[in-house]
Amino acid sequence: MSEERRGGGRRSRTNRGGGAISQLEFRDVQNPYAPLELATPDQVEAIHRTSMRILSELGIRVMSTRVMELFEAAGAIVDRAAQTIRIDESLVAEALKTAPSSFTLTSRNAAKRLTMGGRHVAFGLVAGPPNVHDCVNGRRPGNMTDYENFIRLAHHFNAIHIIGNQVTAPQELPANNRHLDTYRANLTLSDLAFHCTAIGRGRAMDGINMMAIARGITPEAMAADPGVITIISVNSPRLFDDAMAEGLIAMAEHGQPVTITPFTLMGAMTPVTLPAALAQQNAEALFGVVLTQLVKPGAPVMYGAFTSNVDMRSGAPAFGTPENTKANVISGQLARRYRLPYRTSNANASNAVDLQAAYETGMATWGAVMGGANMVYHAAGWLEGGLTASYEKLILDVEILQNMMEILRPIDFSEDELGFEAIRSVPTGGHFFGAEHTLARYESAFYRPMLSDWTNYGGWEAAGAKDALTRATGLWQQALRDYEEPALDPAIREALDAYVARRKEEIGSDEP
Amino acid sequence: MSEERRGGGRRSRTNRGGGAISQLEFRDVQNPYAPLELATPDQVEAIHRTSMRILSELGIRVMSTRVMELFEAAGAIVDRAAQTIRIDESLVAEALKTAPSSFTLTSRNAAKRLTMGGRHVAFGLVAGPPNVHDCVNGRRPGNMTDYENFIRLAHHFNAIHIIGNQVTAPQELPANNRHLDTYRANLTLSDLAFHCTAIGRGRAMDGINMMAIARGITPEAMAADPGVITIISVNSPRLFDDAMAEGLIAMAEHGQPVTITPFTLMGAMTPVTLPAALAQQNAEALFGVVLTQLVKPGAPVMYGAFTSNVDMRSGAPAFGTPENTKANVISGQLARRYRLPYRTSNANASNAVDLQAAYETGMATWGAVMGGANMVYHAAGWLEGGLTASYEKLILDVEILQNMMEILRPIDFSEDELGFEAIRSVPTGGHFFGAEHTLARYESAFYRPMLSDWTNYGGWEAAGAKDALTRATGLWQQALRDYEEPALDPAIREALDAYVARRKEEIGSDEP
Repeated sequence: MSEERRGGGRRSRTNRGGGAISQLEFRDVQNPYAPLELATPDQVEAIHRTSMRILSELGIRVMSTRVMELFEAAGAIVDRAAQTIRIDESLVAEALKTAPSSFTLTSRNAAKRLTMGGRHVAFGLVAGPPNVHDCVNGRRPGNMTDYENFIRLAHHFNAIHIIGNQVTAPQELPANNRHLDTYRANLTLSDLAFHCTAIGRGRAMDGINMMAIARGITPEAMAADPGVITIISVNSPRLFDDAMAEGLIAMAEHGQPVTITPFTLMGAMTPVTLPAALAQQNAEALFGVVLTQLVKPGAPVMYGAFTSNVDMRSGAPAFGTPENTKANVISGQLARRYRLPYRTSNANASNAVDLQAAYETGMATWGAVMGGANMVYHAAGWLEGGLTASYEKLILDVEILQNMMEILRPIDFSEDELGFEAIRSVPTGGHFFGAEHTLARYESAFYRPMLSDWTNYGGWEAAGAKDALTRATGLWQQALRDYEEPALDPAIREALDAYVARRKEEIGSDEP
Repeated sequence: MSEERRGGGRRSRTNRGGGAISQLEFRDVQNPYAPLELATPDQVEAIHRTSMRILSELGIRVMSTRVMELFEAAGAIVDRAAQTIRIDESLVAEALKTAPSSFTLTSRNAAKRLTMGGRHVAFGLVAGPPNVHDCVNGRRPGNMTDYENFIRLAHHFNAIHIIGNQVTAPQELPANNRHLDTYRANLTLSDLAFHCTAIGRGRAMDGINMMAIARGITPEAMAADPGVITIISVNSPRLFDDAMAEGLIAMAEHGQPVTITPFTLMGAMTPVTLPAALAQQNAEALFGVVLTQLVKPGAPVMYGAFTSNVDMRSGAPAFGTPENTKANVISGQLARRYRLPYRTSNANASNAVDLQAAYETGMATWGAVMGGANMVYHAAGWLEGGLTASYEKLILDVEILQNMMEILRPIDFSEDELGFEAIRSVPTGGHFFGAEHTLARYESAFYRPMLSDWTNYGGWEAAGAKDALTRATGLWQQALRDYEEPALDPAIREALDAYVARRKEEIGSDEP
């Protein structure tokens, strides 16, 4: 590893004309450390027991007849009138026997294959905001031009490993088929894997089919080598809606992974106490996990966590709070208890890309990464509690993610690195700038930041006293200029276009 | 704990007229979790072995004859001509037998007694910057008015537990006696313990004497119940200067704790590799620890770490980097190996209170706190790599520290908190805002931030779209308005004034 590091492999993208943005290479990020644990094993068991009581005594309400049939066949207690399904621990245990502890996700660029599980950590682009913002053009409704720019930035910045479900909604396009335009943008402007929309079966199938086209394989072949993933949200407390269930079933049937993420804001969708919120989140997530295994034993599935608190004075959601950070860590302990890959987020509630956005995101990121997350969703660009996708926030986040990647980089403790001879070579009170040991390593010894400016005050002032937000504006603008569209076989591009055209015709004014 | 928490004990300082700043109570912060570990036990031993080689084969250069005599008497190999002292592991082992694993620090307010060691964590005010800055008045040289304001803020904000060594230098006052004015400000404007200046014996003795006066006890009595502490910097690589040695000796003789902190910027004062930097830091710190125990076996001493990297393009110091964060964690492992209380810092290198200042500080803070720091020095107000004490940065830092304090707050996993009955009481798809379980807890269920604004975008915009930096300016201004000087016996105030006057006369134009 040490030699690879020395070899200049640390930074990619060579400088085109003197000013390319310094960034880390695309890499399979792994956390070499023991995950942080904030709950004792007994406390984890207490959460588990409470979750089992929720599932067996209270149950989950489900709209879908198909889901009720699946659970009935598995021996669950289904109250059709009340649309409630109650399951006992044995059904959970059965599902955990077949749910894989890790899976891969392969985009059209096999070199960017992601592993979800174990020590692997992937960072995802923000998903879902209705608005976009940058400091030049201000705040505006989501639209296709901005959608495409965000996909370009996700492709350009190697710290972003996967595209979330619609970085922003292109609101000028028809709601019933714009998922086709966004999937096409994902597949042509980037070579990353992406989340498809799982509201109903059609949107999920379109994602599966289009990724298969882009990879030049059949959807059947892709069942054994997944290429898209989706998030199934739970309408907490304890409600699975019909469209989400259909999306989940379509994905699981086709061997594509789903993440079950209860939307559990403490004080609103769960009790105000963290143990209760986690017990409810856990029950809801496990219910979804069981459903995937009833659809197809062995279907890949992730344990999703999105537990934070609300501002009890206004009811507004808050993120990056101490409670959210603790939830990120303990949810990881739960996911590992069940040997499931773990997805969480590093959100914030700030209305501007400011100090608050930075420290809230930093808190949540530490909880997520040190808590053992395998995927950090919404990791780049999330602002305003998720209502805005922000260009400057994306830059800030990439810097934070790169810092975390470097913190996770294993340290070489060989004798050379312990440096006794180097220390011997410099007299007391001297300095190491010119030492041979230094000169052999200084180019790649330290992480070189993208956004941080370490110039001294005088130099910084003379250069215009630009604060980090101003520099972030320059960086996303430069990244869009430097962006290079990944090559795509023209035949595949045509096939994607044809698929989109055909499906738009089929859908017409209906739901997909 | 649960009931205490419910009882409203979480926030102190009642609202005076509707607008007091919400903040946490002054408390003995403890880290209930297992510290993060980034090095394996073998790797920690590799650092230790390298440090022992540095101490026994290369040695430390020391100017002070007194120090050389002490080490000679203990059996070290002292080269008087080269002023170099070499010690072997047995001398280190002897010292570690008598150095206490924890100690207390008692200010004039016994309720604010700090414990340094074990699971305890204390946060210190920034120390040493020549300049001060705020967003209203700009950047200016340190002066007594600003010095006093920072002490007021340290007293006002409960997350700040201890005053560092001169928050800024009051440059309009004579360099040889201004420590007397700063000590008096510490003791009259706050009731916190503080760091005295240990450049030479005189400044250390003045700190000891004045704290004793403020506590109404003799310096002899204070030897058994320390009240001041100091930082002994090492001029890395491997050089102890004379004035620092004298300060250390004065403190240790009088039973007052010292922190031995090598100033180890990788690439400048140490090799560029982290293991080498830590090996050198460790050797230098242990040398200082041995010295304290030669002066007075049992003298309280802390293991200090200040290892970060420089920008290899400019040589400028950088902080809050991945390397700095890793050093914070592994230094904690070393300190615990030796059963010594552990001091580190959470610095940043930004020139402005901006995104960079926030994420760099956040990274370093997580490394420090989760790495098991007992004291985080420079924890509030550090800017520009330590060249400026910033009012807005202090506000940002207090928010970050309070977040960490809440992350460290133990979680109650009792049945009530696991909330099964509360979950039962709310129908699927409903909400918990009105639930009895919520209403009984909502006032204190979550951390209430000081700086974060969780208003929705519309409300935030209508209120002036103030970003967090703008709000920080308002907060320090309000804190200075709300500040209440702690009561002090007039006889003690007179005694302090008399001491300062007498010493200024004694010192005249000499060194103290």
